[in-house]
Amino acid sequence: MIYFDNSATTKPFPEVIDSFVKVSAEYFGNPSSLHNFGGLAEKLLSQARSQAAKLLSVQQNEIYFTSGGTEGNNLAIKGAAFANNKSGRHLITTTIEHPSVREAIKQLESFGFDVTEVPVDINGRVNVKTIENEIREDTILVSVMHVNNEVGTIQPIREIGQLLKQYPKIKFHVDYVQGVGKVPLNINDCHIDFCTISAHKFHGMKGTGLLFVRDGVKINPLLNGGGQEKNIRSGTENVAGAVSLAKALRLIMEKQQKEFTHLNLISKQLREGLFKIEGVAVNTPETHAAPHIINFSIPHLKSEVFVHALEEKDIYVSTTSACSSKQKTISGTLSAMGMPEERAGSAIRLSLSYTNTVDEVNTVLTAIKQTIEELRKVMK
Amino acid sequence: MIYFDNSATTKPFPEVIDSFVKVSAEYFGNPSSLHNFGGLAEKLLSQARSQAAKLLSVQQNEIYFTSGGTEGNNLAIKGAAFANNKSGRHLITTTIEHPSVREAIKQLESFGFDVTEVPVDINGRVNVKTIENEIREDTILVSVMHVNNEVGTIQPIREIGQLLKQYPKIKFHVDYVQGVGKVPLNINDCHIDFCTISAHKFHGMKGTGLLFVRDGVKINPLLNGGGQEKNIRSGTENVAGAVSLAKALRLIMEKQQKEFTHLNLISKQLREGLFKIEGVAVNTPETHAAPHIINFSIPHLKSEVFVHALEEKDIYVSTTSACSSKQKTISGTLSAMGMPEERAGSAIRLSLSYTNTVDEVNTVLTAIKQTIEELRKVMK
Ligand SMILES: Cc1ncc(COP(=O)(O)O)c(C=O)c1O
Ligand SMILES: Cc1ncc(COP(=O)(O)O)c(C=O)c1O
Repeated sequence: MIYFDNSATTKPFPEVIDSFVKVSAEYFGNPSSLHNFGGLAEKLLSQARSQAAKLLSVQQNEIYFTSGGTEGNNLAIKGAAFANNKSGRHLITTTIEHPSVREAIKQLESFGFDVTEVPVDINGRVNVKTIENEIREDTILVSVMHVNNEVGTIQPIREIGQLLKQYPKIKFHVDYVQGVGKVPLNINDCHIDFCTISAHKFHGMKGTGLLFVRDGVKINPLLNGGGQEKNIRSGTENVAGAVSLAKALRLIMEKQQKEFTHLNLISKQLREGLFKIEGVAVNTPETHAAPHIINFSIPHLKSEVFVHALEEKDIYVSTTSACSSKQKTISGTLSAMGMPEERAGSAIRLSLSYTNTVDEVNTVLTAIKQTIEELRKVMK
Repeated sequence: MIYFDNSATTKPFPEVIDSFVKVSAEYFGNPSSLHNFGGLAEKLLSQARSQAAKLLSVQQNEIYFTSGGTEGNNLAIKGAAFANNKSGRHLITTTIEHPSVREAIKQLESFGFDVTEVPVDINGRVNVKTIENEIREDTILVSVMHVNNEVGTIQPIREIGQLLKQYPKIKFHVDYVQGVGKVPLNINDCHIDFCTISAHKFHGMKGTGLLFVRDGVKINPLLNGGGQEKNIRSGTENVAGAVSLAKALRLIMEKQQKEFTHLNLISKQLREGLFKIEGVAVNTPETHAAPHIINFSIPHLKSEVFVHALEEKDIYVSTTSACSSKQKTISGTLSAMGMPEERAGSAIRLSLSYTNTVDEVNTVLTAIKQTIEELRKVMK
């Protein structure tokens, strides 16, 4: 099996599963319990929090554990909007956000918030000037993703942060889900107020994530209850989830340090190989692009058909993002980049991990070439 | 170690952890992916859904997987309120709900909803007539818990359901978190529209739960995004969590069938033993009470001190509910039952599981007696 769908989800690291199991089986107490068996769980939770904080170079009181990226994005956006709606009701975002940002914002519109979606250029990148032009007296939140999940474009987060630093009333949310462990992001330097992370995208467990909330920044809870996570995210804490998240984060950051050259190498190999295949149009830009996502189109071949043809060869790739792949096959990001429907509707996303190899890339390139030929024959 | 704090959380069954690990390691695909490796995960998810549905005697399209009880309660209450706010904005609940219900409803008040909290009697039970008297033209939701988490009182869910059947505009939410596997609840017979379940309360994994939503009943999502769970609960599905929840539910329901006599026996033994200890006042009523929760007070002894004294003997119990135990030691449920502050502030909750034994109960009773004597001596 060759798995090139790591942006949809990743295989958990065995050590991460081991931690999860150990904590679940042996330290199952409720961290909120008064007794010291609960205290043990509380200690593990607090260690996980400080480890995660250290790895992200933030403070441990800025880490809030969640059930994943979707919850993190919803909590940040709705939580910030409702905590600040006395200062204004205008939000700025982009046309290429993940549905968990876009749809959360859409729900806010039904609550009377006003939204501006700034466009991206042909490379899928927003322009800081465009954002600046949209800032109004009543703007309270800007939400821009770090690495786009469909084409891999890296947004100018630092520049946007520098801009927003001059507007203390405006909070800055960044969806960091696709970037973690592959594209560095300095949360403090970028003046980020809310930053979303999801563990299953970096070999952690599904159902675990965290939201960074800058110390002192107001946010309303989405899940009310027993007051866990400083009242911002109630619910009995998934201690094993938090511990395993911290472990996965440490492991992926170690890989980012030690194996980045390898990832970069296979990424280039893949890109160059794709350029040589006739009929393939690469959509991921050359610059400001993450190393693990390569998106291309094969105009006149339906991407769905192509995914299934590769699956016959035990190769797993995707069309657009996983969550929308069953609903429509036209890539939202490619459309927003101004690509014609033919190209946006025939897009394939290959997404790599550190565990992928040079041999796998060769096999995949050959398979893509063959599959195109085969499908072309069938169609004639 | 004697663990009598099963209402705070339980030790996961080994088979449940095994399922979780197997699915996480081998079927890690994203169920929303187009390829058949994602398809395998989707199949497991759908099997888990139909198993859970069967065990609860409901339809599989009525099951929505969540991250736990707090999310389930928040989703049901806010989701129902916002989906029906055109029909009215009045909600009815009780004075003894779990904070995840109470605080969710409190947040709705800040959105202009109007709330009536009906009182309970000295046994912690609501009266159906009282609820009926509070019903208004604009009432849209009644939320009443099944088994109270502090004293174990069982609410007249069936009668409330029968009443509400006559008011099709009013939806009925039941927090079933403490009852699962110990006190039967027939979701259909009771005309329940929303029913919350959390796996870690019945030897499942933390961070997993489900919400039953009756087919055809409208509900707005709390977490917007990729459209998973029929758009009601977006986010990459925690497939291992769902599979392990279904397994834990099957195992606990088997125990409920085969080992209920045992649980009832140790429960009686505990209650009778407590009655014989001087200075102990049992707060859990004799009738309409769950078999696994026994709450008692030792007036003039602070419950916090008592919990720590028992912990010295390797016995783990709690004061009020876990989530509030660190914040205050006065039991909200006991106060609502009209107990004086002295009694509500010295409450201890013992909560059993099928795995507890007659010997453990004897040891705990002896330890309670000894501890009271010891602490009394110290205080003199
Ligand atoms: C950019 C981005 N944001 C958010 C999410 C949502 O994360 P999760 O699947 O953990 O809910 C995803 C993945 O699905 C993503 O790619
Ligand atoms: C009655 C009741 N409802 C809801 C909850 C919340 O469930 P969870 O801890 O899974 O968020 C609990 C336990 O904490 C509970 O006892």
